[in-house]
Amino acid sequence: MRLTAETSSDGVRQQLFTLGELPGVLWTPEGAVGARPLILMGHGGGEHKLAPGMLARARRFVIECGVAAVAVDVRGHGERPRDAAFDRLASEEQALVAAGEETSPLLADFQALVARPTVTEWQAVLDAVQQLDHIGAGPVGYWGLSLGCGLGVPFVAAEPRVRAAVLGLFGALASVEAAAEITVPVEFLVQWDDERVPRHESLALFDAFGSAEKTLHANPGQHGEVPGFELDSALRFFARQLGS
Amino acid sequence: MRLTAETSSDGVRQQLFTLGELPGVLWTPEGAVGARPLILMGHGGGEHKLAPGMLARARRFVIECGVAAVAVDVRGHGERPRDAAFDRLASEEQALVAAGEETSPLLADFQALVARPTVTEWQAVLDAVQQLDHIGAGPVGYWGLSLGCGLGVPFVAAEPRVRAAVLGLFGALASVEAAAEITVPVEFLVQWDDERVPRHESLALFDAFGSAEKTLHANPGQHGEVPGFELDSALRFFARQLGS
Repeated sequence: MRLTAETSSDGVRQQLFTLGELPGVLWTPEGAVGARPLILMGHGGGEHKLAPGMLARARRFVIECGVAAVAVDVRGHGERPRDAAFDRLASEEQALVAAGEETSPLLADFQALVARPTVTEWQAVLDAVQQLDHIGAGPVGYWGLSLGCGLGVPFVAAEPRVRAAVLGLFGALASVEAAAEITVPVEFLVQWDDERVPRHESLALFDAFGSAEKTLHANPGQHGEVPGFELDSALRFFARQLGS
Repeated sequence: MRLTAETSSDGVRQQLFTLGELPGVLWTPEGAVGARPLILMGHGGGEHKLAPGMLARARRFVIECGVAAVAVDVRGHGERPRDAAFDRLASEEQALVAAGEETSPLLADFQALVARPTVTEWQAVLDAVQQLDHIGAGPVGYWGLSLGCGLGVPFVAAEPRVRAAVLGLFGALASVEAAAEITVPVEFLVQWDDERVPRHESLALFDAFGSAEKTLHANPGQHGEVPGFELDSALRFFARQLGS
């Protein structure tokens, strides 16, 4: 892990890093020493690790919960090379959604091309980041909506360090087998009028989680219109579950 | 309105009252003076105004939000005379639920026998209670699950003083026409494994609310197993919506 740049503002220290060829960013409270909970965030499709929404959430996690937050660019996004295979998959998915058809035929491609490699990358990020003195081996949370949920489901299922997850805005492309393996508390967001995720697919994914404690929050509006109070709720959820 | 008994404990003043023949209870902060928001609570079927859950919620509303709370016994419940017509309706509903059949054929009876008279009673309660110096004409919230939702939907639809409502655990017996007339913010609770309310009926009722701000919270478990953190959420919802 190589730190490449560092800035601080309003109580939050931001460190850019590369892990092998993987570009990432780490946020911690300014002057933090000792172990603390860590929230790994997965960005949405077409976004990247430093998208405005990612920055705003990371700041609140760090300032209001005192935790660390980390994010890396997903394959084909941000500072990583454009990826024809990923772009083709995304186009096929959007075409199926636009036609009102099931996206589940793309599940195997999605898993092989993006989901499985991402799980491996994110596990390596946890390994590296938790060796830093101001992070350490504290409990881990995961936050990811949309593509960040599609990648988060197999990650949370595979990674025992994750103790709680905020997921949502994703449907049939998430494997229900992986969802059933998740047993940690989950807060799951649904946009009631989501133009990209059929409602029944969202409800089926929530249904599939193996967690004894899982809570679904549904709000009116389209895919990009999650109300601001849901971030307040996510903050309280992580504070409660990670003991931060 | 006639006050019949008064006690105080741990910061909460409890006043029993009768309004005509209607038995009720009012909770306010000890030593409260001046106007404040008021939350009217509707109890569940087979319960009454002083059931343990009602008391616990009222205490938290009063202490944590600084509001007043009020509840009266519903027809056939608590201190009111047993009511053969209500009991027959409840038995018919339970028989339909047990048989896995729709309860909607009972809607007209439910409206005529209980829902419409209750709306009138509760409006009279608001009229009377808001004349008290330590309540006044502040904003009103409504909290009611199960039967308290079935009665709450027509009440909230009819009563412009209500600015926000927590509802849930109720399905087809609630009129979707009344639900569509509700435009205030609603927090709506669903038990994902509710043995008394089919999931599709809950989702249809949420769908029917006319409110621009409505949020559905679904949790695993049966009808009586709403997790404790949903009361925390209701408190924050009312604090935000009623400005308390």
